[in-house]
Amino acid sequence: MSAVSGAPVRIGLLGCGTVGQGVVRMLAGTAGATIERASGQRLEVGPVLVRDAARPRPGVDPALLTTDPERVLGDPSVAVVVEVMGGIDPPMSWLLRALRSGKSVVTANKQLISRHGSELLRAAQESGTELRFEASACAAIPVIKVLRESLLAAEIEAVTGIVNGTTNFILTEMRRSGLSYADALARAQELGYAEADPTEDVGGADAAAKMAILASIAFHSRVLLGDVPYEGIDRLQAEDVDMAHDLGFVVKLLGLARLVEGAVSVRVHPTLVPAGHRLAAIGGPDNAVLLESSTVREIMLVGPGAGGTETASAIVADVLSILGTHRGSFLHNALADAGRPILPPDEVQSAFYMRLVVADRPGVLALVASVLGEEGVSIRTVVQRGQGVEARLVMVLHPTPGVRVRAATVRLAALEEVREDPVVIPVLGSGEGG
Amino acid sequence: MSAVSGAPVRIGLLGCGTVGQGVVRMLAGTAGATIERASGQRLEVGPVLVRDAARPRPGVDPALLTTDPERVLGDPSVAVVVEVMGGIDPPMSWLLRALRSGKSVVTANKQLISRHGSELLRAAQESGTELRFEASACAAIPVIKVLRESLLAAEIEAVTGIVNGTTNFILTEMRRSGLSYADALARAQELGYAEADPTEDVGGADAAAKMAILASIAFHSRVLLGDVPYEGIDRLQAEDVDMAHDLGFVVKLLGLARLVEGAVSVRVHPTLVPAGHRLAAIGGPDNAVLLESSTVREIMLVGPGAGGTETASAIVADVLSILGTHRGSFLHNALADAGRPILPPDEVQSAFYMRLVVADRPGVLALVASVLGEEGVSIRTVVQRGQGVEARLVMVLHPTPGVRVRAATVRLAALEEVREDPVVIPVLGSGEGG
Repeated sequence: MSAVSGAPVRIGLLGCGTVGQGVVRMLAGTAGATIERASGQRLEVGPVLVRDAARPRPGVDPALLTTDPERVLGDPSVAVVVEVMGGIDPPMSWLLRALRSGKSVVTANKQLISRHGSELLRAAQESGTELRFEASACAAIPVIKVLRESLLAAEIEAVTGIVNGTTNFILTEMRRSGLSYADALARAQELGYAEADPTEDVGGADAAAKMAILASIAFHSRVLLGDVPYEGIDRLQAEDVDMAHDLGFVVKLLGLARLVEGAVSVRVHPTLVPAGHRLAAIGGPDNAVLLESSTVREIMLVGPGAGGTETASAIVADVLSILGTHRGSFLHNALADAGRPILPPDEVQSAFYMRLVVADRPGVLALVASVLGEEGVSIRTVVQRGQGVEARLVMVLHPTPGVRVRAATVRLAALEEVREDPVVIPVLGSGEGG
Repeated sequence: MSAVSGAPVRIGLLGCGTVGQGVVRMLAGTAGATIERASGQRLEVGPVLVRDAARPRPGVDPALLTTDPERVLGDPSVAVVVEVMGGIDPPMSWLLRALRSGKSVVTANKQLISRHGSELLRAAQESGTELRFEASACAAIPVIKVLRESLLAAEIEAVTGIVNGTTNFILTEMRRSGLSYADALARAQELGYAEADPTEDVGGADAAAKMAILASIAFHSRVLLGDVPYEGIDRLQAEDVDMAHDLGFVVKLLGLARLVEGAVSVRVHPTLVPAGHRLAAIGGPDNAVLLESSTVREIMLVGPGAGGTETASAIVADVLSILGTHRGSFLHNALADAGRPILPPDEVQSAFYMRLVVADRPGVLALVASVLGEEGVSIRTVVQRGQGVEARLVMVLHPTPGVRVRAATVRLAALEEVREDPVVIPVLGSGEGG
């Protein structure tokens, strides 16, 4: 482990709901230790602003809780403020004050950034602090970092995204189960994919805020929420979802941002996506963002666009970005020290596909099954196809350590009834990795 | 534009093939200007080591070309060395020397990093320089940056990837066109997706090197090429690809890296992927990497895993990472200054889906078509379904500015023959964005 020295970096929180608790747990746990190794700086969590300091928060030291914003904003030892309370005011005035007093800010607040991001960034610039907001668009999918760092110079021409998981879940259900919009929404609410008041998601405002943020960064140009016309899925009829399917399309709520002759076009609306398009395959509550440029062609990022730990992870990554990694040393240690042992391949467990060319006569399947059984390998599926004197015996085997399948294969290959070397191919999925 | 000041940062190149030429063009063009704005530092390209300095390279000033490595390695004004020549030696000794003499290094050399990454990183640490190698795994797909920054603290448990485009193209062709392995390879060579000597790709060594690098970073542990058992697709039979399909699987060459009870398991081999799995949908020469962790669930990155400009883009992004972005100011300017104009939504061109409920009587389709025609909107597909007194008229319209479709819709809604408000939904694809 590299040396961690100096006064700790104190992280103050505004808000401590699911996401805030996730941030505290991560920073106080293994993730915090990893960040300390990578940045060379010690972390300290707290104070944490809440409405009711008497109510316990799992994993959060009650002594850190306060109802007084001064304990966060007025404390000169707080170097980074994490805002996870939501809303426009008071967060706006509090974050401005934090930035102006030399504190860096991490926020998940898409409504705030899509309306007032430029004022906050100006305050950050004037005070030499940082403002980060990865969690404001698609949670743990690192689309902002990829745009502002990896693809900063790639001259992005279009950002097309499924950036709202609630509506994507509802549309997937409408198509898959033939549900009406109202019934699909009810199911989404049952499963926790939609809020009790789903207006912001189903009406498109949530997606519009994210697209304003993504378009700003992709095109290096100010795009505000008010610049993004949006339409939700709340008036979509099952008939059109079905009709679109018949015509070879899938209906998605898309955010579409692109450069058209030097101007920025950004909008959010239900869209027919050709069934073979890669965004058509993104179902359920997942998000996906497709980035296009003549330099890099198409890069797509896919993942859960919401969730407590996912959002917390993006916030923690932003904290690390602010602290910075000290040059080389963390990765150097990681790659230079053996660290974890390497597992011999034969110990890895997997399901397997096995194809045998065997003599087409009675008793061969029983013989093969008994050899497999003796080696502790069991059969999940078997297909036998006779073709005259020879037959194909194709099996999918239950998850087994590779070493056993290898032993069984050697024995099978030696049988007079087996005519060619057995073909064995691992299967991805259950049992992978034990 | 923010102030760019001080002595320029000089970038030396080792090698100047397709990728090197792409790097020079990007740095000397708009991308270089963007990096200067973002980092606050001026860039200067050259010297460029080549074998034959007399042969011209498109876009590269001939005066920069040299056959003498000293002109790059011995020049104290060169701050960053970009290695795009390939091979193990001389690059290894040259890069060690560069790092030890205080130059940072960017390389696309996966064979070198997967064998000697730890020695190079140690040299970087000792001299306080940086070593970056995003382009060594999956070109412009920023999987290394995402792992080492965005997901550094996310405790990644598995990295599963299609990390070789040549083999993915061949497997896609075997399945789609029923070709044998040899014929699919020949087609890949014809189309430029496979080298004349395809051994490193089809035998799995290329994928193994990438997986060693990705596993090292994901698990913060040294994994060398020699730790990765690999098997290619060169002995795969069309019969097994077809049989797998019948059983509900797609054959992919996968890299599988995961933590098993604290140990690292990494391997590369043909694998049966369930047809519904998200990696099964990645066809052609594309790459995809799936990152799993209990914190962020599954994040997938998809894109071209090879190509000259794609690889150059990853190298340029690494150069920016080394220079660093000065706090806030670039993004601040981007979001605070209006920059580009915002295009009014009605001017955006798109294909549209339109559904009308009309009176089921002769002449209605002709009437609708003439209204559309008068507004300059033409029909690509039309489906008419009679249902007694009413009929459904469902059309897909050719790409048209939204304003025209809106005008046509208003006129259609006013017709006595049209019984409900027309439903209009944009279609993604041709014509999008004009």
